[in-house]
Amino acid sequence: METPVDGSPTLAAPADPPDFDSYPMRARVSAATPIRHGVEVRWDDGTVSIHHRFWLRENAPDPETTHPVTREQALQLIDIPEDLEALATGPDSAGGLRVAWSDGTESRYHPGWLYAHGAGAASHDIHALPPRQIWPTDGSMTIATFDGPAALEDPEVGAAWTEALHGEGAAVLTGLPLEETTILTVPEAIGPLRETNFGKVFDVCSRPNADSNAFTAMTLPVHSDLATREYVPGLQFLHCLANEAAGGDSILADGFAIAEALRAEAPEAFETLSTVPLIFANKATNTDYRFETPMIRLNNAGEPDEIRWSPWLRAPLRAPFATVERVYAALRRIFRLAEEPRFRIRLRLRPGDLLGFDNRRILHGRTGFDPATGARHLRGCYVEREDLLSKIRIQARSRRHAAQSRSITTGT
Amino acid sequence: METPVDGSPTLAAPADPPDFDSYPMRARVSAATPIRHGVEVRWDDGTVSIHHRFWLRENAPDPETTHPVTREQALQLIDIPEDLEALATGPDSAGGLRVAWSDGTESRYHPGWLYAHGAGAASHDIHALPPRQIWPTDGSMTIATFDGPAALEDPEVGAAWTEALHGEGAAVLTGLPLEETTILTVPEAIGPLRETNFGKVFDVCSRPNADSNAFTAMTLPVHSDLATREYVPGLQFLHCLANEAAGGDSILADGFAIAEALRAEAPEAFETLSTVPLIFANKATNTDYRFETPMIRLNNAGEPDEIRWSPWLRAPLRAPFATVERVYAALRRIFRLAEEPRFRIRLRLRPGDLLGFDNRRILHGRTGFDPATGARHLRGCYVEREDLLSKIRIQARSRRHAAQSRSITTGT
Repeated sequence: METPVDGSPTLAAPADPPDFDSYPMRARVSAATPIRHGVEVRWDDGTVSIHHRFWLRENAPDPETTHPVTREQALQLIDIPEDLEALATGPDSAGGLRVAWSDGTESRYHPGWLYAHGAGAASHDIHALPPRQIWPTDGSMTIATFDGPAALEDPEVGAAWTEALHGEGAAVLTGLPLEETTILTVPEAIGPLRETNFGKVFDVCSRPNADSNAFTAMTLPVHSDLATREYVPGLQFLHCLANEAAGGDSILADGFAIAEALRAEAPEAFETLSTVPLIFANKATNTDYRFETPMIRLNNAGEPDEIRWSPWLRAPLRAPFATVERVYAALRRIFRLAEEPRFRIRLRLRPGDLLGFDNRRILHGRTGFDPATGARHLRGCYVEREDLLSKIRIQARSRRHAAQSRSITTGT
Repeated sequence: METPVDGSPTLAAPADPPDFDSYPMRARVSAATPIRHGVEVRWDDGTVSIHHRFWLRENAPDPETTHPVTREQALQLIDIPEDLEALATGPDSAGGLRVAWSDGTESRYHPGWLYAHGAGAASHDIHALPPRQIWPTDGSMTIATFDGPAALEDPEVGAAWTEALHGEGAAVLTGLPLEETTILTVPEAIGPLRETNFGKVFDVCSRPNADSNAFTAMTLPVHSDLATREYVPGLQFLHCLANEAAGGDSILADGFAIAEALRAEAPEAFETLSTVPLIFANKATNTDYRFETPMIRLNNAGEPDEIRWSPWLRAPLRAPFATVERVYAALRRIFRLAEEPRFRIRLRLRPGDLLGFDNRRILHGRTGFDPATGARHLRGCYVEREDLLSKIRIQARSRRHAAQSRSITTGT
C-alpha cells in the first residue's frame, strides 16, 4: 500500500468517481482496516466510516466494474465471489481508499465520492433536493415571476425558474409568444410532455357538451387535475392566449400548507386522510381510470409529498360505517379549510403568461366567467415532476463541476 | 313513501346509477330504516346493508347532485348540511331506495347500484380487475399469441389480447406491417405513448457510443426498463423489424413468480426487498433520475404489484452496515433465482411480431448477438398500465351493458 506524506499536498490523481458527478475533497483517508465483511476508514478530520464489502466492490470505478462510457454497472453482483473479503486496505497517494480483495482484484476510490457516501451520513447527501417552502398564510405570498424569454436563454434565470417550481410549487413566465405552439415548446425545456386521454395539449375555454367541468364557464373549486390516475401528473402548465371575459381569475392554494394546518388543527382528520384509502375514479363513457390511495401521501420524513384534491371525482367509498363517518368528517374539514382566504392566492393571467405549478401539491381553480363579455383561452399540458427534479440535480451537478474546476485552477 | 306490491313485478323505472355503468338487479329493497347518521336497508334476499348519510347524499343520481352530462359531482360535499339526517326511507316502486332528507331534498337509488356498493361488500365489487396468473415454473408456460390484424379489428380478439397482457403480463401479436410507424399506431389502441428522455420510440440495435447497455450487442441480463423512475413505465412494446443476426433471442421471466418463490424459499430476503428502500438512479451526463423505494412493492392484499429489477442502475445504498449486509444477501439471492431455467422463457421474435409485456412485472433480457451475421432491429415504446386497466374495465362494462339489454329484451 502507498503511504501519503501527512500534511503535504498530494500530487497523484484520485480514482474517478463511479458516476458523472464531481465530489469536493472534504477530507482524506488517513488509515483503513479490514473488518468482517467490510472496511473501516479513518479520515483526517476525525470521521470514521465503515463500508460493506459488496457495496465497495460493486461501486469500484475500474472499467471492468463500471462501464467507462455509460458508467452503468458492468460487473454483475452475482459474479462477485460470495466469500469476498478485503485482505489489505489503506490510503492511496491521492487521499482516497485502496482495497486489495481476496479474489486478487484491487480497487481504488475517490476520497470525495467515498466521504459523500459515508455510511449513514445523510448530512453529506449532495444529491438531496433543495427543501420546499410551504406558503405563508399571512397574505405575504406571491407567485415567483420571471421574464419568459430570459428564462429560456439565460441558464441562471432558467435555474431560478425551475427551482421556484420545485421549492414554492408554482411560477409564472411572462412575455411569451401568443402562439398555439408555445405550450408545446416551453415546458419541453423541462421534460417530455405527458400525453393523456385528453391529448398532449388541452384547451380551456367554454364549450358546448363539455365532457368535464373544466370546459364550462362555471366556477371551478380548487382541485388537482387527473387525481384519478395512479401517477397524477406532476407539473401542469397553462399558457394564456386570451383573458378578456369578466371573471375567470385563477385561484391557487398550497395543498401542503392546508395539510399542515389540518395536522395542527385536527390531527385525527390528518391521520384519517393520510392513511385511509379513497377511490379516485373518473366518470366517462369510454374510460374508467380508478386508483385507491389515501388523499395525502407522506414521504419517509413524514412530510406531505402528494395531495389528491378531488371534490368531484371520487367513486363511492368502500369502508366500514365508522370509517366512512371519520372520512367524511375529515374531508369536510379539509375542503372547508381550502375555502379560507389565508390559503388562497388570486391571480389574473395575462396573454403571454405561462403559469406552471406542481399539480401534486398546488390546488388550482378559477372564478366563474361570462363568455359573452370576451374570450378566455388557456392552453395546458403536463410534464412530470421527476423530469423537473432531474433538471435541478443536473444544475446542481454543473455548479459542482464548476466549483471543482475553480478549485483545481486556484489550487485550493 | 311509495310501497311496492310484494312479489309483483315492479314496473316503474329505477333511478339512474350516478355513473355510466350498468348494474344487474341482484336483489330488491324490501325495507329501510333511518339510523343515526345513515340508513339501514333490508334486501329481499335477506342481506342487510348500512349506508352513511353523506355517502348516500353525495352519490344521489339527481341532476343537482350528479351532473347529468359529465356524471361528475355537481353538489359540493361542503354544501351538504352538516346535521343532515334521513327522516323517512323505504323501497321505491322499482325495488330501489328512497330517502327523504332533513333539508327537504329527496333521493332515489338504483337497486343494482346500491347493492353492488353495499358497505364492505367487496365480493360485489363489479369493478374489480380479473386476477393475475403467476407463470407456472414446470416448463409449461407459453406466451399468449394473437393474429395482429385480427386483434385490431375484432373486439373479441382485442379483448383477449388486452386481458392476456394484464393477466399473464405478456402477449405477442403476429403479422403486423413491417413499417417504422407500426410501433406508434398499434400500442395507441391501448393508450397514449409514454414519452421519455429517450423519445417517444426507441430503436434497439447495436450502435457505436451506446449511451445504455441496451444499445450494444452484448448479452443483456433480465431487467426492468426505466426502473429509475418514480413511475416505471407499465407496458413495454417491442416491434421486430429484423432479426437475422446469430443470437439475439428474447428472454422473459415473471418477476412476480420469482418474488413468490423468494417469499417461499427465503422469507427474510423477501421481507428485506419489500421493505428496505433502494436508490434507483440512472447514470448520464444530462439527466439524474433517482427514486428511493423497495425493489418489491405489494398491494393491499400483500401480493406483488411492482418489481424494479435493476442489476446495473442503483445508486450506492444508504443504510446502516447490518442492513447493507441483509440487502446484498437478498439481492444476490433474488438475482440468482432469476438465472434458474424454471423462471425463464426464451422467445425468438420474427419480423412483424409485436411483443408487449408488463414492465413492472415481467423482466426482459436477450442473448448476445453478432451484428456481423445479420441485422437485428426492434422498435420499442411504452404505454401505461393504467390505460390498459381502464380499457379492460370498459370492456367489462360493455359486457354488462349488453347483458342488461338482453335481460330487458327477454324480460328476465
